Amino acid sequence: VSSRTCLAVVQYAGAGFLGWQRQATGRTVQGEFEAVLARLVGRKTPVTGAGRTDTGVHALGQGVSFAVPDSWRADDLQRALNALLPADVWVERLAEMRPGFNARKHATARCYRYVIGTDEGGRSPFRRSFEWALGRPLELEALCAAARVFVGEHDFRALSAAGPKQDRRCRVTRADWTRRADGTGVTFVIEADRFLHRMVRFLVGTMVDVALGRRPVDDCAALLAAADNQAASPPAPPQGLYLVAVRYPDHLYAEP
Amino acid sequence: VSSRTCLAVVQYAGAGFLGWQRQATGRTVQGEFEAVLARLVGRKTPVTGAGRTDTGVHALGQGVSFAVPDSWRADDLQRALNALLPADVWVERLAEMRPGFNARKHATARCYRYVIGTDEGGRSPFRRSFEWALGRPLELEALCAAARVFVGEHDFRALSAAGPKQDRRCRVTRADWTRRADGTGVTFVIEADRFLHRMVRFLVGTMVDVALGRRPVDDCAALLAAADNQAASPPAPPQGLYLVAVRYPDHLYAEP
Repeated sequence: VSSRTCLAVVQYAGAGFLGWQRQATGRTVQGEFEAVLARLVGRKTPVTGAGRTDTGVHALGQGVSFAVPDSWRADDLQRALNALLPADVWVERLAEMRPGFNARKHATARCYRYVIGTDEGGRSPFRRSFEWALGRPLELEALCAAARVFVGEHDFRALSAAGPKQDRRCRVTRADWTRRADGTGVTFVIEADRFLHRMVRFLVGTMVDVALGRRPVDDCAALLAAADNQAASPPAPPQGLYLVAVRYPDHLYAEP
Repeated sequence: VSSRTCLAVVQYAGAGFLGWQRQATGRTVQGEFEAVLARLVGRKTPVTGAGRTDTGVHALGQGVSFAVPDSWRADDLQRALNALLPADVWVERLAEMRPGFNARKHATARCYRYVIGTDEGGRSPFRRSFEWALGRPLELEALCAAARVFVGEHDFRALSAAGPKQDRRCRVTRADWTRRADGTGVTFVIEADRFLHRMVRFLVGTMVDVALGRRPVDDCAALLAAADNQAASPPAPPQGLYLVAVRYPDHLYAEP
């Protein structure tokens, strides 16, 4: 049978998963997705995710690629996946891609969001799984001053849990903080060509320490020159982090 | 020991509970709350909730009254409750009340909200537990026209699951629909002196049928004159419903 290459844009709530990546034991998004896909197409079907989100991290737009027999139309497959996937995973869109497409290798940019509750209400059952319930006011200008330091191409080894062997340069094209309209929190949006392991959480942890006056903003530039992550602030907790979107070149889509 | 009468303003996410009211088996908010309170004060302590929310219904401001030994200060008790309560229940405020205060009997008004997702995204894991994922557009003017019929004092037996013996008159002081700022849904807010069992969900189910053109708006007035709920539309699902606030006379608070 000839096959159809697909890109699923997938949302998931992180609380119920040990992250994206399949593991020998424990519930993972990749594991759930591959199990449902195998039931539908009748054979083992490995999938590739654009970002290996950690335990508790959410996705609003994880890119997931895989191939299915071309008897499956994209519309039908999306409906069938959503009918069988658990309630905390959802395929928002499903596109047909050119043969050989790989959601991880072909991503040109990724966008993450980090949400912090600055009021007491962040501990509410409607918010505590979806943001960092810091419960302390943060000065937006201090956060923005720290964020500006990270824009551009830098080696982020000191602000990540990246292994020693890999390339640690990332080109950050956007790093903005905004205050939530209702005044109960702040939101960080960062876009880059690639991210290292835990990089967004290390960045947020350090910027929050700057905004709380625990360390000077000059530390941000110093960390970009450091050899390891010993001087970074502790990473921010996972439940505030969202993989928002992954971008691919237009020509990799089967239909424009 | 002399005792202190308290009002806790409690939030809970409904998905994990068989509603508010304690039951012989199954997880309920009252059951969890009483279990934690008994651990803290060292004796069985019954609590009274202002509204008996059903399975899956949320609360942003359930009123809960109880008495504790006066060795417990309100601040300390709130902190201790929040430390021991499960993650889906949270005491937002705790006030000391005059002796004899009862959260159910002394409530003068209750306010509920009902949230409907009108786009496809309502099935997202971040929304599906918190709104009715209708996935169809609704005309705001049609919803508002139906809601206006219900304002005032009426017998709501035909729009509830109330038992035959009880008083079924309620004075509705507010019934408004608004569109969510991002255009993805609509929100209903209703305030009344009292509500019958499932009344808000019956009202919403009927108003949505009017807005979808399944029944004329004139049915609303006809239902207020009906003898039972046979002609009402099916009640809207529980996950869209929130008990937002319960109001009490100022003079029942121990400190103004």
